Amino acid sequence: MVHFADAVIERTIELRCPVAAGIDPRPELLSSELAGRFADSARGLARAYEHFGAGVLDGLEGIVPAVKIQIAFYEALGLPGVRAYAKTLRRAKEKGFLVIADIKRGDIGSTAEAYAAGHFGGRAEGLDADAVTLSPYLGGDSLRPFLADAGAPADQEVKGAFALVRTSNPSAREIQDLRSDGRPVYEHVARLVEEWGADHRGTSGYSALGAVVGATYPEELRAIRRAHPRMLLLIPGYGAQGGTAEDVAAALDERGAGALVASSRGILRGFRAAAERGLSPEEGIREEAVKMREDLRRAFETVRAAGTGVDPGRTNGPR
Amino acid sequence: MVHFADAVIERTIELRCPVAAGIDPRPELLSSELAGRFADSARGLARAYEHFGAGVLDGLEGIVPAVKIQIAFYEALGLPGVRAYAKTLRRAKEKGFLVIADIKRGDIGSTAEAYAAGHFGGRAEGLDADAVTLSPYLGGDSLRPFLADAGAPADQEVKGAFALVRTSNPSAREIQDLRSDGRPVYEHVARLVEEWGADHRGTSGYSALGAVVGATYPEELRAIRRAHPRMLLLIPGYGAQGGTAEDVAAALDERGAGALVASSRGILRGFRAAAERGLSPEEGIREEAVKMREDLRRAFETVRAAGTGVDPGRTNGPR
Repeated sequence: MVHFADAVIERTIELRCPVAAGIDPRPELLSSELAGRFADSARGLARAYEHFGAGVLDGLEGIVPAVKIQIAFYEALGLPGVRAYAKTLRRAKEKGFLVIADIKRGDIGSTAEAYAAGHFGGRAEGLDADAVTLSPYLGGDSLRPFLADAGAPADQEVKGAFALVRTSNPSAREIQDLRSDGRPVYEHVARLVEEWGADHRGTSGYSALGAVVGATYPEELRAIRRAHPRMLLLIPGYGAQGGTAEDVAAALDERGAGALVASSRGILRGFRAAAERGLSPEEGIREEAVKMREDLRRAFETVRAAGTGVDPGRTNGPR
Repeated sequence: MVHFADAVIERTIELRCPVAAGIDPRPELLSSELAGRFADSARGLARAYEHFGAGVLDGLEGIVPAVKIQIAFYEALGLPGVRAYAKTLRRAKEKGFLVIADIKRGDIGSTAEAYAAGHFGGRAEGLDADAVTLSPYLGGDSLRPFLADAGAPADQEVKGAFALVRTSNPSAREIQDLRSDGRPVYEHVARLVEEWGADHRGTSGYSALGAVVGATYPEELRAIRRAHPRMLLLIPGYGAQGGTAEDVAAALDERGAGALVASSRGILRGFRAAAERGLSPEEGIREEAVKMREDLRRAFETVRAAGTGVDPGRTNGPR
């Protein structure tokens, strides 16, 4: 059985790189060669996104354990865009990346089942990710269909899911910070995520149901990590959005795993910038990914030396 | 300028039918003829869904002002499914229905822009709905891109959006009922929806940003309607899920408009059941839609006679 959380922990430790590289194609990220070769139609742009995705994946090979593909940028182009999304996703899986579909779906149970069938489908012309992001607003029955594989036969895959807990955007506070019983809503959601995922733990101790927690609110990130030392985290907001390497390194466990730091613009800018320095787009991507990896490795060593990282033995009360 | 909320009010009054018929295709809803004609592959099923959607739309013509197409059931089939979704959506627009894309998207601002471009796109192979459903968990900046058309030039369309406030599913309570300052989270969300939509009102007084409030919690529905007498509501949960005609009629304004009651299974069962009575699937759909319309008309008259409906003049304090 391949359990998503176990696979994340294993590959993160193997590559010493807790990164999910975000694939968020936008016209301004394309090389001038790609932008020029394809006309300014949705269909042309979708083809350009396919080439872009392929180049990015080539550049990331052997560096990062996971990629996070943002479906919105493909949906923006309609049908040709969704086709490019499916191709990019399949290519990422063929190359051995753990693939997180950043879809942020969330609907009532029977509808959630349909989404799960689609995004965990494995059909010929289907979309088949290893994990998805989900919105928690509808409660547990909107997430459960994505965890249905857990407890399955030994030869079956256990897919993963990350529920939004604390997002990285400015207006995250409007609903997520409403206080109930003296605690903000996002802490209640984190507690629910822990409950919902309790029966879906892998041998690593991490559940197939993790949480999205933005690095742009570092204090909140630390508090969530303290309260939930064995919750798999997906952390957006590193770099351009404001989260530092130290902020996110504090969320890693003693082996430097347990969280995937998502970065898209920081890495993707390498695709276009490479040409100015005589590099291929793939080399440009690789350079940025390696830079991020080294930043995180350094920060992790600092945090570990200072003893301020996650220590599950210490989090549940005094020794 | 065509403003979504104004168009909903106008067409609802014209047809005396506050209904958004849900198009939620599932294999068990197909006629045996359709199920038999198409092989049991994703591609075959997607073709069957296209025919199903076309038949449903034919049956609904002249009865309901709006349809709500649930994209999840199409995404479940991967690419061929999304193609069938796009075709059904386009056909619904050509037939003059107001089309609500039930997509429940929600992401940070720049990503929300991409979703808005996709689902309000109008591209050749695009997806172009009149309104969408959205998840509010990320706050205002995740919804604003969908309201960008408001305040646009006179010849431009103002699209609509419905944010989830109180959903119809059993576990809705887990997050939506957390109490903050003595009120449940969903009431805070309703207040935020009112704020976010305040600058996007049409001549009808209703904003382009409305709310999804389930009929399965009738007391909450009444409370939300009392607090927000001029908020456009999309109300799922009528019929099979438990909401009665009286429950939803109480959310209508003095003209019998201001809310769209969403029903899918109740109407869609007519497609398959028709054959047993010698009717075409279109006739079966029409019968069910007319039955629902009559139920709602009757309930509206009852509520109006009892004086328990919405009266904006009375809601803001004693006369």
